Amino acid sequence: MLLQVSCKMISIILIEPRKSGNVGAVARAMANFGFINLVLVNPKCKKNSKEAIKRAKHGIDVLKKAKVVKRFPKMDTLIATTAMLGTDYNIPRSPISPEQLNKIIPSKGKIGIVFGREGPGLTNEEVLACDFVCTIPSSKKYPTLNLSHAVALVCYELSKSLSTKKVSEHILLATKTEKDQLMKLLNNALKKITFKTPQKKETQIKVWKRMIGKSFLTKREAYALMGFFKKLA
Amino acid sequence: MLLQVSCKMISIILIEPRKSGNVGAVARAMANFGFINLVLVNPKCKKNSKEAIKRAKHGIDVLKKAKVVKRFPKMDTLIATTAMLGTDYNIPRSPISPEQLNKIIPSKGKIGIVFGREGPGLTNEEVLACDFVCTIPSSKKYPTLNLSHAVALVCYELSKSLSTKKVSEHILLATKTEKDQLMKLLNNALKKITFKTPQKKETQIKVWKRMIGKSFLTKREAYALMGFFKKLA
Repeated sequence: MLLQVSCKMISIILIEPRKSGNVGAVARAMANFGFINLVLVNPKCKKNSKEAIKRAKHGIDVLKKAKVVKRFPKMDTLIATTAMLGTDYNIPRSPISPEQLNKIIPSKGKIGIVFGREGPGLTNEEVLACDFVCTIPSSKKYPTLNLSHAVALVCYELSKSLSTKKVSEHILLATKTEKDQLMKLLNNALKKITFKTPQKKETQIKVWKRMIGKSFLTKREAYALMGFFKKLA
Repeated sequence: MLLQVSCKMISIILIEPRKSGNVGAVARAMANFGFINLVLVNPKCKKNSKEAIKRAKHGIDVLKKAKVVKRFPKMDTLIATTAMLGTDYNIPRSPISPEQLNKIIPSKGKIGIVFGREGPGLTNEEVLACDFVCTIPSSKKYPTLNLSHAVALVCYELSKSLSTKKVSEHILLATKTEKDQLMKLLNNALKKITFKTPQKKETQIKVWKRMIGKSFLTKREAYALMGFFKKLA
């Protein structure tokens, strides 16, 4: 529920996109992460072209409902995205990361995330018109991401905290109690095995504890292993 | 420097990609995050097509150096990516998120991250051939990401942590051969145990394979477990 509310507040704003294929791919990426508001400012391509529709796939609704406008739409918060890393002498481009964005984004008001043209990106004036800048950390050798990749990454980060919870809710991980029970059953099983030295047995216990800890066991996996140890004991 | 070393260990493996545009876009996304090893398994399109080169942009080197092979390449760890969420009854598809991947991925050994065909993704057999599964959390309504978007997101998450991998560098991880030997010894041990149905035994094998895969066993841990299974058999 919260995810839907948050996604509705956020608009993805593309400044003068030139390739309709990119616009389609942006619509798809938005749909993949539950975002619905797409705004095209002064686009240099057609949003309903064959290529755009092909690339949008099941994100077609986002594409169809995209608003085409001439200027920056009015928003409570405008966030510029840029591949250029700021220096101390270029304050408007001192960026935060998409991960930080996730944490500081407000829970009320209209938020626009602004993506520049393919190639040249946003002008300094456009960056200054925004409240702050977000930069995706990338390779120094080749920092410029494809437009739809940049949108996908920002949408992913924004939706992550909520949808990550969904993944683990769906999967049901073993609880501490279940993991403790597993260790208890292992201990019982180890009693049936003869070790040359007590240290060897201790090592077994340590290794098992670590492996159980490291492997993000699901409930089902934990119960399968419990069954195994019960059979041994 | 460390970032480069770590990126070199990782290969992005595409299974039967059909669209050369996607292959080009994957090469670009990899270059954007400093990854260089691209492997195309039995591709259904040409890696050097005009469309691939156009989309690769400055990721052209990654595209040019991409290996074309007929089968899964041998790696110490193979990680399947899938849009399908597993249930408790479908253990091979119980996934971890790219963020978790970021935390558990080792700093040594060859790692392959496997992406399925556009549309149908990976078969269950292909998923089973991998050590574990990684799923990008996305919208339930439309979870299937574009291939290059999926690669971009995984590369992005991995590159966030690779520079801070120093800690575990000196730890020697179990190789593929050692993990295979461990599974062999487990199989021998399971022969000594009576199961109500053959399925129960199969489940044990699946659970163990997952757990060994997900926990990035060290050599020392692997040998301790081998000792355990030898004692059982």
